[in-house]
Order: sequence, then C-alpha cells, then structure tokens
Amino acid sequence: MTSAARADNGPGAADAAPEPDRKTPGRPRSARADEAITEAMLDLLAEGLTFEALTIEAVAARAGVGKATIYRRWPNKESMLVDAIARLKGELPTVPGTSLRDDLVAVLRPVGTIRSTRAGQIMPCLVPELRRSPELQGVYHRAMEPRRELLRQVLRTWRDKGELRADLDIELAAVMLIGPLLAQNVLFWNPNLPREGLPERLVDGILAGIAAR
Amino acid sequence: MTSAARADNGPGAADAAPEPDRKTPGRPRSARADEAITEAMLDLLAEGLTFEALTIEAVAARAGVGKATIYRRWPNKESMLVDAIARLKGELPTVPGTSLRDDLVAVLRPVGTIRSTRAGQIMPCLVPELRRSPELQGVYHRAMEPRRELLRQVLRTWRDKGELRADLDIELAAVMLIGPLLAQNVLFWNPNLPREGLPERLVDGILAGIAAR
Repeated sequence: MTSAARADNGPGAADAAPEPDRKTPGRPRSARADEAITEAMLDLLAEGLTFEALTIEAVAARAGVGKATIYRRWPNKESMLVDAIARLKGELPTVPGTSLRDDLVAVLRPVGTIRSTRAGQIMPCLVPELRRSPELQGVYHRAMEPRRELLRQVLRTWRDKGELRADLDIELAAVMLIGPLLAQNVLFWNPNLPREGLPERLVDGILAGIAAR
Repeated sequence: MTSAARADNGPGAADAAPEPDRKTPGRPRSARADEAITEAMLDLLAEGLTFEALTIEAVAARAGVGKATIYRRWPNKESMLVDAIARLKGELPTVPGTSLRDDLVAVLRPVGTIRSTRAGQIMPCLVPELRRSPELQGVYHRAMEPRRELLRQVLRTWRDKGELRADLDIELAAVMLIGPLLAQNVLFWNPNLPREGLPERLVDGILAGIAAR
C-alpha cells in the first residue's frame, strides 16, 4: 500500500532506526525518520486498527525505531495524528488565480480523488472515533484548518473583486462547496451521480443557484 | 439508550421470545418481534460492534429469540440491516407543500438532527465498512433510496411549477442540498458554523447562488 509513498526513502528506510543527530548525505536523517514513523502510523490505521487501540509501542515496532525516537519528536499520539493527517491529505492544492471558477475547482478537485488514496481508507475510520472523543475532534480540526483556510481565502479574494455577493457568508459558502464532495466521495450518498466533472458541475451550480431567475 | 424506543413494547418485550403466529391483544406479535430483533441489532451496532463481526446468533441472544425466529423474517443479516437503517432513520419527513423553501427545509431538517440520535452513533461506524464491501453499499443505498427519492420529488414538483431552473439537474441539486448537512453533522467539517438554523441558511444560499448578480 505505501511502497510508492515510501519509495523516496529507499528500501528499508523504515527499518533503519535513523537518528536525527547523525550526518548523512541527501535528506536529513531526522526528516526520514519522521516520515518512516508517520508512515508506520498510517499503515496501522489503514489496516483497520482504531486510533484508540493504537499505541506508541506498535508504531515504534512497525517503524523499526525505539519509543524514545518517537517521544523526541511528538509528546503523544494525538500530536502524531495531526502530522499524519496532514501527510495523508498531501500538499495543499495550488490555486491558479486565473478565475473564480478555476480557483474553486482547484480547491475542490482533490476532495474528489480521496477514494483512490489511503486517505479514503483511514479518514472514514476516524469518523466514529471523532464522535466519541472531543480531544480527537480537536486534532482533526487542527489538521484540516489549513484546507478550510485556503478555501476561505479564495472566497474572500473573489468577493473583494466583486465576483461573489458582497454579503457572502464565507463559512456557509465553504461548506456549500465542500459538503457535496464529502457526501459523494466519503459517504457515498448518491450512486446515480457521475464522479466525472463533479467539482466543475458543483462550482457552476453553487455559483448560479438553483432557483429560476 | 433504547428504552424510549422500546417503551411501546412494554418492559421485557425483547425477552419474551414472541412468536408471530399466536394471537395477542394490541399490536400483532410479529410486528413486536420484528421490532425487538431490529432493536437488538441496533443496540449491538451502537455499542461499537462492526457489521462484519455481527452474527445472527448475537442478535438472537440479545433479542431473547431463537435463530429460527430471525430466519423466518430475514434471509441474512444484510436484509436485516436494510430494515434496521430504515428504523434508525425514522419516518420520512412530511413535506408541507406550502412553498419551495418550506418543503426543502422540511426534508433537510432531520439530516441536521442526526447527531443527537442513535443514528449518529451507528451510521459513521458503517462508513468504513461500506468502503470495504460493495454488497453493504447496496444495502445502504436500498435503505437510503426513499429519502433521496423524496428530495427528488420535491425538486421536480417545484421545477414543474417554474420556481426552479427549467434545466435543473435533479441529482446534482439533491447532493448540493444534502451534502453540506452531512459534512457538518456526520463529518464535523467546519466547527465555526453554527448548527442553529443551518438547513434554512443552506436552502436560501443554494436557491440564490453565491455569485454576484
């Protein structure tokens, strides 16, 4: 599952118990250890282990490092999860700035591809746990906030240019745009709706509204 | 958790091993047995048992009936789940027919209250399983279809009255309306958005669109 994601570490990187303070060529060892540990955590979650059942010991064993190596980097498993979710979600999308429609589609498109990635296996499994743990909800929100903020920035920018309603409720508009993609790609709400071109069709529909003029 | 839901069966109804073919006063015994069995299944799921791990034996034991009593009603646990999800979701909302806005808010309002019910505990737990099992996705869709169809009917009715765009994509509009509520109430997408009045604000926003006129 994670061989592609790990390829840039070279084979066996996760088993090498890298230490942050030794000099090696290429990428610093500390970054490679961070990756190996985060990948080990994601592997365990993708295999169906609940976050509640996940232990630092299990992550250390999977990553081939000692517990002390983990505790030098993260105080607890909640803070590891913030980094793991960020890694899972990948880089923030790049917003082209060419038009309101282009920018919104750029932000929405990755939400539509979640199904084919490891994120698609892990994120729904976290949902039931989010419900049970206010602390875990906080972790999730810290990890998601940069994505929400990117969408808000796009909306504010184009509102200030006069392309969106001057009185636009930014928080409401953000969930209007993201919600349908989450419903389709995470919750499988409507099997009759084709996946192809969905971000574009949603952006057009939400910009124009559904009421008759 | 289910004492209120079971109150109309009387205490101990679930333990009475009711048989469908004996005459008793009030509600037919078969309906009461159906309820007891479905409630037992929902209890087990709400306690965190996965659908995969759920057995007919466990449901029978919890409901205080024999396995044969269950197999007389349902051929397998997938068909039980269709009825259980339908029960969990409750009655379909009543659409007043007074206005487009009233009708849409009536359909959307129950989606906004899922958090406080047992459905809020169970449905997210099913999501990871849906991803793993195409068969279970089919079960979920059979159970959800009456709700999707109600929303489609409302949209068709008001489109035909000229209040919605004549070329409205009904499937797209349905997920535009439902998606944001699922994102908020099931996936907790944006903690900055107040719950109060959300169905109304979404309906207004989606009818009017967010683009400047």
